[in-house]
Amino acid sequence: MHLFYQPEENLFELDEEEAKHTTKVLRLGSGDMIHVTDGKGFLKKCVLNIQGRKVGYEVLETIFVARRDFEIAIAVAPTRKAERNEWMVEKMTEIGVERIDFLITEHTNPETVNRVVNTTRLNRIAASAMKQSQQYYKPEITVNNKFDSFIRNASEETKLIAYVPGQNKVEHVFSKVKKNKRTLLLIGPEGDFSEREIMLAMEQGFSTVSLGPTRLRTETAAVAGCHAINLAQAL
Amino acid sequence: MHLFYQPEENLFELDEEEAKHTTKVLRLGSGDMIHVTDGKGFLKKCVLNIQGRKVGYEVLETIFVARRDFEIAIAVAPTRKAERNEWMVEKMTEIGVERIDFLITEHTNPETVNRVVNTTRLNRIAASAMKQSQQYYKPEITVNNKFDSFIRNASEETKLIAYVPGQNKVEHVFSKVKKNKRTLLLIGPEGDFSEREIMLAMEQGFSTVSLGPTRLRTETAAVAGCHAINLAQAL
Repeated sequence: MHLFYQPEENLFELDEEEAKHTTKVLRLGSGDMIHVTDGKGFLKKCVLNIQGRKVGYEVLETIFVARRDFEIAIAVAPTRKAERNEWMVEKMTEIGVERIDFLITEHTNPETVNRVVNTTRLNRIAASAMKQSQQYYKPEITVNNKFDSFIRNASEETKLIAYVPGQNKVEHVFSKVKKNKRTLLLIGPEGDFSEREIMLAMEQGFSTVSLGPTRLRTETAAVAGCHAINLAQAL
Repeated sequence: MHLFYQPEENLFELDEEEAKHTTKVLRLGSGDMIHVTDGKGFLKKCVLNIQGRKVGYEVLETIFVARRDFEIAIAVAPTRKAERNEWMVEKMTEIGVERIDFLITEHTNPETVNRVVNTTRLNRIAASAMKQSQQYYKPEITVNNKFDSFIRNASEETKLIAYVPGQNKVEHVFSKVKKNKRTLLLIGPEGDFSEREIMLAMEQGFSTVSLGPTRLRTETAAVAGCHAINLAQAL
């Protein structure tokens, strides 16, 4: 069943892009059934009512799907390429994530951030990935340029920072996840977190974790970390 | 230390692209040290000898790095977009994989395959990802258009196919991995494997596995499956 996204509560029509997709690609017509989610847990079973270019629908049944028992937030330094940030958002959404925080760090170039983090586009990509993977919750996407405040205000029960200090053996993120709690994992930029940032995080209760034996690009680390936490909750 | 790739045993110079990167981007010169791998386990510590455009090097020390105790092969139906196939190869290489088999299935469009699977380019991407992640083995990349033969000839100890049949509860891939053995995981196309393909695989000793509770795109499934197997071996 085709799943569409309409976050507005009192709007019973698809936006332009989805409208075109419905009529031109899927070739659906009035009377056909579709599913519509608001990205906040509601799944509406609807029947199409197409008038010209306007693709409206009538809601036959509404189901509320509860959130899962745990939450995952990935705070990641933006990479320098917009498309890599977009891949990251798409893949984490498919796999399962409640919140993606783009976090500006000391080794992140602030000038490039606006160019490579387009939240409108990223939210659209997250909505697409949500529909593609048949989920009913769209992840929240935030941009944070005050590292210290972000660290101090983090309220998750399990706070992790991906960092492998020199010689010390560090546990894998998989082993640090507490079932049915909220986990926040920080992923640093290409140049890594600064000493000061690590110290501050540890003072604020963050534990250092490893993401595996190989060196991963930032966007790969975010997806791998997100996946590892999902696995730890599921298994 | 910068890692470069030179698969030819008796060639002691970098190819054009790496040569340019060395002089123009990294601004290294004669006398500077670099590391060179052949992608088959050898790590050579070298000193640069630059003459004009030719970036040659003298090998000071050669180290052989043994392969890891287990092997991972991911056989995946090519997606319809070249860039998604490229992303898949890059990410699996970063995370750790010995072999990537592009597998043409009944629901794969054979006409698009040549267009979206460019092995020269994919091998270059794998080599880049290998260097980026400081590894010394380049994954093998194959293209297979005879599904039946591929299935029948599979010699790995653990043979898995990502497929969740209807109502049956299926184990997660993570639980099916045997330590220090070779694992082969099959990932189907967007339209899934056909009934016939699944039956044949099961007859040939493949076990069906799940990759998690959400529906993943083909390229995401390949990376998630590869990551899950790596985790199962490491933890």
